[in-house]
Amino acid sequence: MKTRAAVALAAGKPLEIHDVDLQGPQAGEVLVELKATGVCHTDAFTLSGDDPEGAFPAILGHEGAGIVREVGAGVKSLKPGDHVIPLYTPECRECDFCLHPKTNLCQSIRETQGAGLMPDGTSRFSLDGTPILHYMGCSTFSQYTVLPEIALAKVREDAPFDKICYIGCGVTTGLGAVVFDAKVEPGSTVAVFGLGGIGLNCIQGARMVGADKIIGIDLNPDKVAMAKQFGMTHFINPKDTPNVVEAICDLTGGGVDYSFECIGNVHVMRQALECCHKGWGESYVIGVAGAGQEISTRPFQLVTGRVWRGSAFGGARGRTDVPKIVDWYMQGKIDIDSLITHTMGLDDINHALDLMHQGKSIRSVILY
Amino acid sequence: MKTRAAVALAAGKPLEIHDVDLQGPQAGEVLVELKATGVCHTDAFTLSGDDPEGAFPAILGHEGAGIVREVGAGVKSLKPGDHVIPLYTPECRECDFCLHPKTNLCQSIRETQGAGLMPDGTSRFSLDGTPILHYMGCSTFSQYTVLPEIALAKVREDAPFDKICYIGCGVTTGLGAVVFDAKVEPGSTVAVFGLGGIGLNCIQGARMVGADKIIGIDLNPDKVAMAKQFGMTHFINPKDTPNVVEAICDLTGGGVDYSFECIGNVHVMRQALECCHKGWGESYVIGVAGAGQEISTRPFQLVTGRVWRGSAFGGARGRTDVPKIVDWYMQGKIDIDSLITHTMGLDDINHALDLMHQGKSIRSVILY
Repeated sequence: MKTRAAVALAAGKPLEIHDVDLQGPQAGEVLVELKATGVCHTDAFTLSGDDPEGAFPAILGHEGAGIVREVGAGVKSLKPGDHVIPLYTPECRECDFCLHPKTNLCQSIRETQGAGLMPDGTSRFSLDGTPILHYMGCSTFSQYTVLPEIALAKVREDAPFDKICYIGCGVTTGLGAVVFDAKVEPGSTVAVFGLGGIGLNCIQGARMVGADKIIGIDLNPDKVAMAKQFGMTHFINPKDTPNVVEAICDLTGGGVDYSFECIGNVHVMRQALECCHKGWGESYVIGVAGAGQEISTRPFQLVTGRVWRGSAFGGARGRTDVPKIVDWYMQGKIDIDSLITHTMGLDDINHALDLMHQGKSIRSVILY
Repeated sequence: MKTRAAVALAAGKPLEIHDVDLQGPQAGEVLVELKATGVCHTDAFTLSGDDPEGAFPAILGHEGAGIVREVGAGVKSLKPGDHVIPLYTPECRECDFCLHPKTNLCQSIRETQGAGLMPDGTSRFSLDGTPILHYMGCSTFSQYTVLPEIALAKVREDAPFDKICYIGCGVTTGLGAVVFDAKVEPGSTVAVFGLGGIGLNCIQGARMVGADKIIGIDLNPDKVAMAKQFGMTHFINPKDTPNVVEAICDLTGGGVDYSFECIGNVHVMRQALECCHKGWGESYVIGVAGAGQEISTRPFQLVTGRVWRGSAFGGARGRTDVPKIVDWYMQGKIDIDSLITHTMGLDDINHALDLMHQGKSIRSVILY
């Protein structure tokens, strides 16, 4: 079949809209018609050429929502008509990682996914006979795409695609880090470094579970209003605060219970650790640092009880946890609508990337 | 009263045996007659002058066992005749730290203890009218010493002082990191870096809780026999192994579940983190690094699920957990006897320090 898709032909070039050939689902695979997809920094990072694992030509996009249209042989958990969110972190429920209580990093299809291929080592997309690579196992910048069954979360049918697509990455990454990884308790103190989409979702996660003090840290005071709307109780601007760590410790009687780094800056990661409370404070690295960059601290910080951890896809086991987050959205426990600042058609996808680079959007969503 | 004590008059000088004046216990304090004390690296570190918080003149020693001889006003949990182990990490059961489920670092008397004083800000020791400082709240290099009630663990009376004194520091630090902090599960894989006293106690802790693979790493092959006796299943000598992290990952199918750094070397701390299994491996810093030294790694190590933590006094809440460890020793679950390689009288305490510096002892114990 044919599908319209935004194709990344080469690093650093704008995306091009093409009618691409799409092979139907093979055994264990599912054909999905996407109804909406977010445009995420990670897509832009790969398109820029800075991603050392980026490969071209590829169909980017990993934050979608849509409807199952066809299932391959042996697919049991999904049928045509089901509403789904693609998962760049799958959940096979069989590998050593899925069976371990402490991680969500299913490894069952990691190698082929990392290489831009389906689990059988081939691509379903092609253009004029040349294979086009999948991306993060999702390729949601195509109206139709094929995914492994284990990489699709089935969600309720009354949830709007143009909002819940954001749960495919940003919402879950921020909210999940608080709820699934850190398991922040009611009454906790929390610091969130970086008030972009991930940071705002950390903040509303902390509010949802009943944190007392939720401190946001950002260089841009324009972000305060939205962050307050999402639950931030205190704001610190490092431009006005010579010692951010000290300021946070002063605000919290010795440091926060949990901190989250949502920027990807290794110096901020250190601040995020060191503003944690002696004895029990835990810091989570969410942001992705530049290649080769390192974090450092005095080991005394750890010996006196601080914990340094990371979080990927919010610690969520996608097929199990993503439907819960959709429920929380539908129940009004979390706000997604305010974060989706722009919507447009696939033809305008390069404009969505421009808005992101200009800092004018929190999230742009493409509607198919 | 008078008490015989080994006094550290100044940094870098040998200890001197003196008959020192000791004031009786004040409110909330307890007079203890020590029966035995270990001589620990931390005592030597302070005596050397390298400890930036070291102050003189002082009576060192923090690894003792003895008998309560007198209690001050208001002391309720102890009475004359009780057998006790002094605790350099007290357990008041009232401060924010004691009431927090994630830490053992009771802070109730930290400031005065750090200054070498009793909680009322004065010293009980003096020599010719000059006050002599306490050390780590214990000063077990004196036959009689005074401690706060909250800094004494009451232990069973059939346990031999000359062995259980080692539970006051080294045994608990290693064993506790495994049992109380990491909570290593049966079947786990464990790496222990450094096969000195702390490392051997990590190893026997891992054996006690049913770990499957217990990998010891040390530059000195002479340590292998004892480590095997304590439960080590595999040995790696970095001199013979170009890439220790890779060797451990090969041995364990991708990395250990838990690792423990028992040396104080920041480069080894990094190895200890990076040999942990993706997704869930946790590394504990136990060793004390030199002043100003820093640990570093790529944040990717954390984002992919490894956890960097520290451990102090093995995560033990002293009054609660030290008596349990004494029980485990008496029940034969752990070996202490083999670790105590030398015993001597107080007059020979400088010899005990020499044996340690020469690497000839695991632990020397002074018998009063």
